[in-house]
Amino acid sequence: MKTRAAVAFAAKQPLEIVELDLEGPRPGEVLVEIMATGICHTDAYTLDGLDSEGLFPSVLGHEGAGIVREVGAGVTSVAPGDHVIPLYTPECRQCKSCLSGKTNLCTAIRATQGKGLMPDGTTRFRYKGAPIFHYMGCSTFSNFTVLPEIAVAKIRKDAPFQSSCYIGCGVTTGVGAVVNTAKAEPGATIVVFGLGGIGLNVIQGARLVGAGAIVGVDINPDREAWGRQFGMTHFIDARGKDRAALIAEIAALTDGGADYSFDCTGNTEVMRTALECCHRGWGESIIIGVAEAGKEIATRPFQLVTGRVWKGTAFGGARGRTDVPKIVDWYMDGKIAIDPMITHVLSLDEINRGFDLMHAGESIRSVVVY
Amino acid sequence: MKTRAAVAFAAKQPLEIVELDLEGPRPGEVLVEIMATGICHTDAYTLDGLDSEGLFPSVLGHEGAGIVREVGAGVTSVAPGDHVIPLYTPECRQCKSCLSGKTNLCTAIRATQGKGLMPDGTTRFRYKGAPIFHYMGCSTFSNFTVLPEIAVAKIRKDAPFQSSCYIGCGVTTGVGAVVNTAKAEPGATIVVFGLGGIGLNVIQGARLVGAGAIVGVDINPDREAWGRQFGMTHFIDARGKDRAALIAEIAALTDGGADYSFDCTGNTEVMRTALECCHRGWGESIIIGVAEAGKEIATRPFQLVTGRVWKGTAFGGARGRTDVPKIVDWYMDGKIAIDPMITHVLSLDEINRGFDLMHAGESIRSVVVY
Repeated sequence: MKTRAAVAFAAKQPLEIVELDLEGPRPGEVLVEIMATGICHTDAYTLDGLDSEGLFPSVLGHEGAGIVREVGAGVTSVAPGDHVIPLYTPECRQCKSCLSGKTNLCTAIRATQGKGLMPDGTTRFRYKGAPIFHYMGCSTFSNFTVLPEIAVAKIRKDAPFQSSCYIGCGVTTGVGAVVNTAKAEPGATIVVFGLGGIGLNVIQGARLVGAGAIVGVDINPDREAWGRQFGMTHFIDARGKDRAALIAEIAALTDGGADYSFDCTGNTEVMRTALECCHRGWGESIIIGVAEAGKEIATRPFQLVTGRVWKGTAFGGARGRTDVPKIVDWYMDGKIAIDPMITHVLSLDEINRGFDLMHAGESIRSVVVY
Repeated sequence: MKTRAAVAFAAKQPLEIVELDLEGPRPGEVLVEIMATGICHTDAYTLDGLDSEGLFPSVLGHEGAGIVREVGAGVTSVAPGDHVIPLYTPECRQCKSCLSGKTNLCTAIRATQGKGLMPDGTTRFRYKGAPIFHYMGCSTFSNFTVLPEIAVAKIRKDAPFQSSCYIGCGVTTGVGAVVNTAKAEPGATIVVFGLGGIGLNVIQGARLVGAGAIVGVDINPDREAWGRQFGMTHFIDARGKDRAALIAEIAALTDGGADYSFDCTGNTEVMRTALECCHRGWGESIIIGVAEAGKEIATRPFQLVTGRVWKGTAFGGARGRTDVPKIVDWYMDGKIAIDPMITHVLSLDEINRGFDLMHAGESIRSVVVY
């Protein structure tokens, strides 16, 4: 079949909207009509050539929502007509990681996914006969895409695609970091560094679990209003403040330090501040942001010996098929908000503008609706 | 009263055995006759002038066991004749830390303890009229010492002093790191870097909780026999192996990486290896060793984002008055061993030889018996 798609033919080039040949689902795979997709910083990271493992030509996009149109042999968990969110972190429920109950980092198809291929080692996309790579196992910048059955979360049919697609990455990453990774408890003091889309979702995750003080830290004072909209109780304008000054200011707001802190910046210096602003004895810092290649985090071991814990999270610690439908429910029940974060709705033809808006810091989330 | 004590008059000088004046217990304090004390690397760290906050002249020693001889006004939890272990990490059961249930790092007397003083800001030791500082709130290198009530753990009377004193630091630090900080579960794979006294106690802590593979790593092949004596199942001779080689060797022995790793070396490069040898998705690395002043730990944030956790522990996460008596019970019940680790028993007059043995790597633990 044919599908319209935004193809990344090379790094640092705008996406090109073309018609691709798409092979139907093989055994264990499903064909999904993507109805909406967010444009995430990770797509830009790859398109900008910053990911040393980025592959081209490829169909980017990993934050979508759509409808199953066809299933391959042996597929039992979804059927044509089901609404789904593609999962860049699949959930096979069979591998050592899934069975551990300790992580969401399913390893079932990791090797081929990292190579831009389906689990059988081939690609479903072609352009003028030449293969086009898949991206993060999703490739949602295509109106139709093929996914492994274990990489789709079946969701309720009354959830609007335009907002629920954001649950495919940003919402789940931020809310899940609080709920699944930190397992923050009511009354906890929470400090969030970086009030972009992820940071705002951490904030509303903190509100969801009944956190006490929710402190946002950013160098952009315009983000204060955004943070307060989703539950932030205190804002720190970090401009011109060094690590010691920030730690002292946070300690004053949180009775000695954060119970949980979250880095949503990807800046390794900020990651250090996020750790060291945690309360002695028990404060946990969770890294969400993706750092530049080669950058390292550092601290004195004394920070850990005196009880601070340094963690990270991927996809908010969420098991895709199990937890993503729950987050859709939370959205539909009004427990979390998404619509105000969707600042721009674009057509596929306008997708490059979505990247421009993100780079300029003018959007929280741009969504392409097919 | 008078007490014989080994006094550190200055850094990098041998201890001098002298008679000190000791004032009796003030309100909330107890006078303890120390019956035995271990000589720990931390004492040497201070005596060698490596601790920038080290105070002189002082009575070092923090790993003792003894008998309460007198109590000050208001003391209710111990009485003369009680056997006790002094606690350099007290347990007031009133401060935010104690009440959190999340940490053993009681803050009740932290400020004065760090200044070498009793909680009222004075010292009980004098030499020729001049004040001598306390050390880590214990000063067990004195036949008699005065301690805050909240800094003694009452233990059973049938426990021999010569072995149970080691529970005052090394045993609890190692065993507790596994039991309290890691909370390792039966079957867990555990990797221990550095098979000195702390490492051996981590090993027997791992055996106690029913760990699966218990892998010891050291650059001294003589330590293999020591490790196996306490439950180590595999030994890695780390000589000449870089980080990548060690991580690969550990992954092969542990089906992909450690569930829990422990640094007992104080070397920040080893701390990094200990983190990175952990299993993707859930492996936790716990820093026990004390690093040189100014040294920092570092890693790529990717190590944390993919599920590894970096922690530290002090005094094995044990609440002194609550958990130390339990560890004494474990020793008396044969669940853990101590006697084979006491490689040298010395008199107070021989205490400097204990430091020499430790520096030469010839002892696991030297104990001074009064």
